[in-house]
Amino acid sequence: MLSKLAKKLNDFDPGFLPAAAGEFFFTFLFVFITVSAAIATAKMSDGKDSIPGLIVSSAANTLAVAAIVSAGFQISGAHLNPVVTLVMALGGRISPLRLLFYFVLQLLASSLACLVLRFISGGMEIPVHALASGVGSFQGLGMEMILTFSLLFTIYATMVEPGKHMGHGHGPLVVGLLVGANTLSGGLFTGASMNPARSFGPALVSWNWTNHWLYWAGPMVGGVLAGFIYERFIIIRPSSYAVLSTGVESV
Amino acid sequence: MLSKLAKKLNDFDPGFLPAAAGEFFFTFLFVFITVSAAIATAKMSDGKDSIPGLIVSSAANTLAVAAIVSAGFQISGAHLNPVVTLVMALGGRISPLRLLFYFVLQLLASSLACLVLRFISGGMEIPVHALASGVGSFQGLGMEMILTFSLLFTIYATMVEPGKHMGHGHGPLVVGLLVGANTLSGGLFTGASMNPARSFGPALVSWNWTNHWLYWAGPMVGGVLAGFIYERFIIIRPSSYAVLSTGVESV
Amino acid sequence: MLSKLAKKLNDFDPGFLPAAAGEFFFTFLFVFITVSAAIATAKMSDGKDSIPGLIVSSAANTLAVAAIVSAGFQISGAHLNPVVTLVMALGGRISPLRLLFYFVLQLLASSLACLVLRFISGGMEIPVHALASGVGSFQGLGMEMILTFSLLFTIYATMVEPGKHMGHGHGPLVVGLLVGANTLSGGLFTGASMNPARSFGPALVSWNWTNHWLYWAGPMVGGVLAGFIYERFIIIRPSSYAVLSTGVESV
Amino acid sequence: MLSKLAKKLNDFDPGFLPAAAGEFFFTFLFVFITVSAAIATAKMSDGKDSIPGLIVSSAANTLAVAAIVSAGFQISGAHLNPVVTLVMALGGRISPLRLLFYFVLQLLASSLACLVLRFISGGMEIPVHALASGVGSFQGLGMEMILTFSLLFTIYATMVEPGKHMGHGHGPLVVGLLVGANTLSGGLFTGASMNPARSFGPALVSWNWTNHWLYWAGPMVGGVLAGFIYERFIIIRPSSYAVLSTGVESV
Repeated sequence: MLSKLAKKLNDFDPGFLPAAAGEFFFTFLFVFITVSAAIATAKMSDGKDSIPGLIVSSAANTLAVAAIVSAGFQISGAHLNPVVTLVMALGGRISPLRLLFYFVLQLLASSLACLVLRFISGGMEIPVHALASGVGSFQGLGMEMILTFSLLFTIYATMVEPGKHMGHGHGPLVVGLLVGANTLSGGLFTGASMNPARSFGPALVSWNWTNHWLYWAGPMVGGVLAGFIYERFIIIRPSSYAVLSTGVESV
Repeated sequence: MLSKLAKKLNDFDPGFLPAAAGEFFFTFLFVFITVSAAIATAKMSDGKDSIPGLIVSSAANTLAVAAIVSAGFQISGAHLNPVVTLVMALGGRISPLRLLFYFVLQLLASSLACLVLRFISGGMEIPVHALASGVGSFQGLGMEMILTFSLLFTIYATMVEPGKHMGHGHGPLVVGLLVGANTLSGGLFTGASMNPARSFGPALVSWNWTNHWLYWAGPMVGGVLAGFIYERFIIIRPSSYAVLSTGVESV
Repeated sequence: MLSKLAKKLNDFDPGFLPAAAGEFFFTFLFVFITVSAAIATAKMSDGKDSIPGLIVSSAANTLAVAAIVSAGFQISGAHLNPVVTLVMALGGRISPLRLLFYFVLQLLASSLACLVLRFISGGMEIPVHALASGVGSFQGLGMEMILTFSLLFTIYATMVEPGKHMGHGHGPLVVGLLVGANTLSGGLFTGASMNPARSFGPALVSWNWTNHWLYWAGPMVGGVLAGFIYERFIIIRPSSYAVLSTGVESV
Repeated sequence: MLSKLAKKLNDFDPGFLPAAAGEFFFTFLFVFITVSAAIATAKMSDGKDSIPGLIVSSAANTLAVAAIVSAGFQISGAHLNPVVTLVMALGGRISPLRLLFYFVLQLLASSLACLVLRFISGGMEIPVHALASGVGSFQGLGMEMILTFSLLFTIYATMVEPGKHMGHGHGPLVVGLLVGANTLSGGLFTGASMNPARSFGPALVSWNWTNHWLYWAGPMVGGVLAGFIYERFIIIRPSSYAVLSTGVESV
């Protein structure tokens, strides 16, 4: 059924299949990099929280997001994150079918990345997002909401509707910097996911679903709220389908 | 009375209310990120000064300032800091009423961020800016003056009056880099605040006002001096109201 | 024979000799920086893996690649890496003779850098790329394939065929960020080489060839695959010789 | 006599006095930031070499150079370093009188920064550049030569004669990245000075001149060699006085 839809979409937009393949690869790479860095730090600190481990987590997120979104933007938009895809769909910037496909592909890519890492690491544990001791689920939910609100707000301000002052091509870099800052902020408390796909793969492969709902609810609520505010109160230009779904240059 | 003034300002400039809301949010986010990173490092190092903790503090400031000012510049100017607002007002670049509003909103945003973090962290202590042992208040004052002088100088050279060699949109990134460098420089000695609003929220929520005056006097004197020198000796073009107070693109 | 070929190439392209000299120097510098950083961290951690050591490795790669490729791109293309050179040749973007010369020069430059560092360090051991305990050669091969696939993909997307959204001159910076992210990802498992020349010099000078084949096979397969996919499925414009082999501006 | 020369220069070029004042301030700030970071890490590690200390040193250099050169370029060129000034003079890009003034001002600024830091830190020791155990003076000389050669080469390639591929305003950022990479490379072995002024102030204030000659000879030889090669073999356009000495926009 999905392949039928894919064909249909591709009839309409010949860049769709490359975009779908690209989104799968970019999300795979993002999860691969950030989860392998987490495995490495867990191994070197015997699984304990440490300040250098927090630095690695922030750096891996900053570097991976900035590089992958810069490289992948023209192919799939490089959302890497179901919340970004959902907000773009709610804003009328991508079609509902693209939403469906990206959503499934992001979850598959994250799961595959974690399976590959379990193989490459010789069977090491895949760390899942979890709450620090003393942080309740309501507090964790609040943290993920705030962090993802700021993420989507920044994506709007620097990539969807960049102001005239924004440097050409700076959007992906700035979004990477914000994700890195948010990781230093929330990393110890909730893992600073901001991304249900990033949380999903490790939870599936480790089969550890403790508080997993929170890593969907928090980012979804925070991200959608930011998108609503930006679309409703800050942008008045007519929205268009094309902004974050620029196809590849060819094919 | 403030709401009356706000209405008056908005009659004059229809971008004022979004700008005020934006400045509140951007300052909240800046304080939220940097203070939560400070809570996390304090917890992981049992409250002791450590080199990795200094790295986190510098990275959080670099990333947060670069990202938030890039994203928020077109909405409110993203001052995040009463010293920046004051210097822009003294230079005739924003109106006295905007100065008043930003000032109050920055302090409120910082306080709210610290309250939210006390809740999210499960009641952990909010670290306040303090002098290292062996550093007297006069020395601390000098450090904050020098750091904030260089901050305002850099804001002028890269954002208010960028030279022809400056890359489009590089200003916020360069200011972030300088704040990060200054944090590595002064972090151990005074906390490298450079920003009375950043110091105010933690002091209020922790009700610890030791040497708090210094985090107002040092940045104010250093920042105003830099602004005076830049406006008086380096810029000769007629100043205009609009430079750092560009309204949102719409609304 | 090589000098005869060099003359022949230079008759055809007067920028060839400076390009060859540049490629030698840029590769020397890249290996010099990253290997000396590895020597320094090994000395300070008594040769044990550590999270701060991983951070240094990632930072050295990020900074060195971004800076050297930015500075050297106009002179030799600053490949620094036989895989990059091979993929550019397979894509018809550089001539087979340039491939041959760059290849030899990159290996010589890496070896010389390691010899110089043995002298400067007072005879300290030159760390070679190696697999972590628990990581088999097949797993290591997979890691190097994935990392180098993403490297070549990023080079294509940001430097060979940058999209209209890419900022002018951002390519080398983005490639540096990706190499840094990949180092955090694979550093503990395989050393995250992605570059046979980077692995060759230390292996030669330390005369330690354990698993050395893997640091050729993994990057070559992953990189060539990325190049094939990009050339075949994403780019349809006629390829040209000139893209990555821009000569110096003069001489 | 110097003031007479200054007047003479200012008659010829009305931007000279602001440039001289700027160069003094920028060099002061650069030394202030990097030396205070060194004091802080020495205090937190009891003066022992440590990997986190190396990271702080690299980050402070990266951030300070990128930010200060971005901010100061239009005012004085922001050389911060007598080697840069000398090479620009030898290349005919600044006048001999400017060379003389910058030289003296850079040394004075570095000394003043160290005196101020001795006061602010409550009399703590100012760390001087020194060779690691096992590194002889000839080895240290070679390290400083190589590092400074690459620094001047990069300054030429990205700021003096940037290629068409270079992003507008990227030069100062790339130079900052290279200085950070070089610090990770040489920091443990020699301190990775690359700058006699940076070495001079601490040596004077601590009155410790061990191997000090090496921090002049190494950078001077390496830097001049890079300048000679770039001017002679890579650039053929007629050199002009104006490139690195752009006056302020006004005054």
